[in-house]
Amino acid sequence: MTDQETQRRDERPIGVFDSGLGGLTVVREIRARLPGEDLVYLGDTARVPYGARSTETIVRYARACGRSLARHKIKMLVVACNTVSAVALDVLRVDLDMPVLGVIEPGARAAVAATRTGRVGVIGTASTVASGAYSRAVSSLATTAEVVSMAAPLLVPLVEEGWLDGEVPTLVVERYLDALRGASVDTLVLGCTHYPMLRPVIERVAQRTLGEHTRVVDSAEATANELEEFLSSRGLANRSDREGTLKITVTDRPRSFGAVAERFLGHSVGEVEVVDL
Amino acid sequence: MTDQETQRRDERPIGVFDSGLGGLTVVREIRARLPGEDLVYLGDTARVPYGARSTETIVRYARACGRSLARHKIKMLVVACNTVSAVALDVLRVDLDMPVLGVIEPGARAAVAATRTGRVGVIGTASTVASGAYSRAVSSLATTAEVVSMAAPLLVPLVEEGWLDGEVPTLVVERYLDALRGASVDTLVLGCTHYPMLRPVIERVAQRTLGEHTRVVDSAEATANELEEFLSSRGLANRSDREGTLKITVTDRPRSFGAVAERFLGHSVGEVEVVDL
Repeated sequence: MTDQETQRRDERPIGVFDSGLGGLTVVREIRARLPGEDLVYLGDTARVPYGARSTETIVRYARACGRSLARHKIKMLVVACNTVSAVALDVLRVDLDMPVLGVIEPGARAAVAATRTGRVGVIGTASTVASGAYSRAVSSLATTAEVVSMAAPLLVPLVEEGWLDGEVPTLVVERYLDALRGASVDTLVLGCTHYPMLRPVIERVAQRTLGEHTRVVDSAEATANELEEFLSSRGLANRSDREGTLKITVTDRPRSFGAVAERFLGHSVGEVEVVDL
Repeated sequence: MTDQETQRRDERPIGVFDSGLGGLTVVREIRARLPGEDLVYLGDTARVPYGARSTETIVRYARACGRSLARHKIKMLVVACNTVSAVALDVLRVDLDMPVLGVIEPGARAAVAATRTGRVGVIGTASTVASGAYSRAVSSLATTAEVVSMAAPLLVPLVEEGWLDGEVPTLVVERYLDALRGASVDTLVLGCTHYPMLRPVIERVAQRTLGEHTRVVDSAEATANELEEFLSSRGLANRSDREGTLKITVTDRPRSFGAVAERFLGHSVGEVEVVDL
């Protein structure tokens, strides 16, 4: 027996949940780092977007989605949605009685590692920004760091519509980042898992608006890094010499979601299943 | 007794339903023409927008909303949403067993009245356009008329975000109307009740892109006109010498909805009630 085979391992899949297709950015990062893990994805496409809804409604939707993923005998849940991570992580932990990893703490940790001035900008949905979750997470890691947040509600519809480059996304991003001008941030967190799909535009505008050395931090990348660490430190990882599977479930429009997912991930995703919540 | 007092009248309220705040454009038109009618409005703000969802999901949401309004003992339902009108009117008529008036037939009738060339453009949500409902409605009224439709999914998020004028809305509308250039339409239907809030921008761009004599037809206005005719022809109208009430119900975020409604309607709307569907 090799060392690897004698290590503890957990072959159950990991659940990944988002309101829509933004969580695919997290899936892409997880698959790059943890190719042996099986993933079950749930996109709540019948109720996307969550970003402007009340905390009560987001919690209600998140609990229904968590229960749906739990039926797949998952070993843990990754909440690949900043809006849900901002308001519903604790409820999900109690409900599901399993490890639940959100995207905000990893994003905050990456921001604290990246900033030199301690001034961090965050763009996210209205609910994420209103929750103050990034401010709390950054403060708990670096007491002198400061977070300046800006809600950017139109970016999710732009991504869902597939307008990822050109004049309109550039103008919209400019308008949101203009509000952070003068806040002297040196780091900008993409506080919504949809936003990495607009990263080239956001990076270009951030460098022009906020300063050419502005660092853009992606909570999707940061989350995949923490997930890797979490799994190996808890003995929850699957074998790394196998090819993990990806099962996608949605609450509406499976075919169009499958097409977008294949384009985004660069490989076939098989049949996308509809679940009724 | 005066003539008016001897006329049949029906004092029950009229239900008005939309996925979000777009239906307020219909409410405004109804109140201008039928000031004596009591209205109960339901905005399904926990699940807005409907425009990119599947027919099955839209029907499911519409039935739940119809049942919710029926509890207010309404005499009829106005579906102030093109997406729902396009796919769920018949189901609602059977479910609720009362007159149900949608916005598409009135909009189509107004377009047929407005066009001189018989070539009608329609902008609407993805679901409305995919349903072909405007083409069918226009063809049944004027067999030689032709409809060219264009889905404009970003307009609803722009309205919900309150970006009603300036560079971004202008560019977005330009991009959608560009696709209708060359279609030789002389009339453009605002096939979504959110769009009248963007009417100045749409009108400007339409005149520049489609021709300076392009007529813009608003399905909200057309619907209020038909409602007036419908009520009086069926003896369902309330007294016109009274001041009708407006009760607003939503499925999420009552306070912010109330604020937008007051700004839009120009008067206080009282307490907005949350209903759980």
